[in-house]
Amino acid sequence: MSDVKPQPQAASEAIEPLSPDEEAVVRSLSRVIYALPRAMDADMVREQRIPLIEYLTLMNLSEAPDRQLRMSDLARVCELSVSGMTRVVHRLEGEGFVQRVKCAQDARGWNAVLTDAGYARLSEAWRTNLLSVRRHFLDHLEGLDLKALGAALKNVAT
Amino acid sequence: MSDVKPQPQAASEAIEPLSPDEEAVVRSLSRVIYALPRAMDADMVREQRIPLIEYLTLMNLSEAPDRQLRMSDLARVCELSVSGMTRVVHRLEGEGFVQRVKCAQDARGWNAVLTDAGYARLSEAWRTNLLSVRRHFLDHLEGLDLKALGAALKNVAT
Repeated sequence: MSDVKPQPQAASEAIEPLSPDEEAVVRSLSRVIYALPRAMDADMVREQRIPLIEYLTLMNLSEAPDRQLRMSDLARVCELSVSGMTRVVHRLEGEGFVQRVKCAQDARGWNAVLTDAGYARLSEAWRTNLLSVRRHFLDHLEGLDLKALGAALKNVAT
Repeated sequence: MSDVKPQPQAASEAIEPLSPDEEAVVRSLSRVIYALPRAMDADMVREQRIPLIEYLTLMNLSEAPDRQLRMSDLARVCELSVSGMTRVVHRLEGEGFVQRVKCAQDARGWNAVLTDAGYARLSEAWRTNLLSVRRHFLDHLEGLDLKALGAALKNVAT
């Protein structure tokens, strides 16, 4: 947006345009937001025949107490709509990697539970995911202060 | 995925699990991939009544030679499918911010052209977008080496 200047009324409350370094970081965001998930999904499908979202669903379940989560909580941690999450879980159920069970505390609610087959599938795909995130992302961050970066990114859009 | 270990056959070709700092960076990615665009879109809609994708479309056109791009190139720079881009441009045409003109070099192709009204709309919304990217993103990166970060992120998933 370098060629567009703030409007006069805006200029009154002085606002600093992006510095060249800030501009470069902001313009590189699309690599992380769009290109990285696309590249990692392609690796998972090609090498493991599992889409990244299905892998991440199994991963999130594996880390939950009793390896299960309410559908609404699973949707939240996977950054999906509940309807989108339902479709993913339906596919994983069909493959025997996830089961849906009535929620103990709330008869109207359902929990998604990772099966042993799902855990085994996750373990099989783990290495491909690790190599993928290293190759497409972490390897490019060499020399950066990862501790500071992680602490910073954790607060983005909070 | 900390609790899942690589399979034996994988272990042979030694692979380093993520360090705690790497793990923290990878786990914070969803803030950038999902939460940041959501937060910025909400700011743009609330304060400027323009969705972030429409703002970015006007921005990309404003930076193109003659303020115009082929629909397929516009889709690529906006990280949208051609059909998704067509819907966005259709809305912007309806508001008079963009026009579609036959491509000079290729009678079958169409270019999207930023109108003066579109440029004015972009200029109006520029300040809100700048404040939004500062508040939700850049302010959290204070103290980091932005030059090195920009150079690193530019190569993500390349």
